[in-house]
Amino acid sequence: MERKKALELVEKQLTEHRYQHTLGVMETAIELAQRYNVDEKKAEIAAIFHDYAKFRPKEEMSQILLDQNMPSDLLVHNTELWHAPVGAYLVQTEVGIHDEEILDAIRYHTSGRQDMTMLEKVIFVADYIEPGRHFPGVEEVRAVAKHDLDRALILSLRNTMMFLIKKNQPVYPETLLTYNAMVLNLKA
Amino acid sequence: MERKKALELVEKQLTEHRYQHTLGVMETAIELAQRYNVDEKKAEIAAIFHDYAKFRPKEEMSQILLDQNMPSDLLVHNTELWHAPVGAYLVQTEVGIHDEEILDAIRYHTSGRQDMTMLEKVIFVADYIEPGRHFPGVEEVRAVAKHDLDRALILSLRNTMMFLIKKNQPVYPETLLTYNAMVLNLKA
Repeated sequence: MERKKALELVEKQLTEHRYQHTLGVMETAIELAQRYNVDEKKAEIAAIFHDYAKFRPKEEMSQILLDQNMPSDLLVHNTELWHAPVGAYLVQTEVGIHDEEILDAIRYHTSGRQDMTMLEKVIFVADYIEPGRHFPGVEEVRAVAKHDLDRALILSLRNTMMFLIKKNQPVYPETLLTYNAMVLNLKA
Repeated sequence: MERKKALELVEKQLTEHRYQHTLGVMETAIELAQRYNVDEKKAEIAAIFHDYAKFRPKEEMSQILLDQNMPSDLLVHNTELWHAPVGAYLVQTEVGIHDEEILDAIRYHTSGRQDMTMLEKVIFVADYIEPGRHFPGVEEVRAVAKHDLDRALILSLRNTMMFLIKKNQPVYPETLLTYNAMVLNLKA
């Protein structure tokens, strides 16, 4: 799909603020894809559509989670996690994108998963460090992403978990399993 | 078992420093048991024996983990976790304690588990706040333990996870599941 067409489709789904974020993720994902030899076109499309479902009503998202047999533990965790797997589903059914690598990059861009592909890592990290992001620690992740994508991913996961734990929020188990697998892999 | 006899048995298994820690856990566990209507005698015995296996050789512990079909993911995680389930096993086979509530309190005193019993919570928190413990945040947990055992447990789990994540260490998944269950329960 052409970038222009893809952006038109996604713009209608998002607020202006979230659309600007999406443009930032797109630019960052393409940069990371170039740096780490990942398919640029797939990174571009996955980035453009990563937040496609962000503003769907919670009722619609929970219904899709149930109907499509998505992991049931998502329902007891933060609703913020829902738009990623629901987005992968809607991008397939409404937009007609069937590339599994792109769909997985959308599906796992919030929770992470064990054994992430390079494309999934690129989208996850791009979402975390795009130029519109401003929070403690983001500069460090930006710097690390220039030379070590895995460490940038670990830092993103780690900051996310610490943020949630400090606020007494639950942490989605798959996010911890992603972090554990990455740090154990780094030690090995 | 009489306290004197129990302490004699455990003293032989520990360094002087760890024995002093055990005395602190015992006193704290009895206080918590009184405060929260938990069987004092069980709290005393579980506390005395909670670190029984602490100084067993790693080879012996990993062999017991394998032979006794203990959770296999323990083997890829910090060896610090091993002495708890191995301790429960050895306290049964070497000391002859068969009370399942006491053994579970020993078994889960490092990892935690979902749906902990009151006795398990008492031992977990006592181990964390006994008077010999000195680390950032311990005073807050001590204060909270005077009126809310669940919140003291959440704080202990949270501090432990943050400590590990800051050091780029993996976190045992059951510990996160314990924390998640406790905070979700608190919200409900």
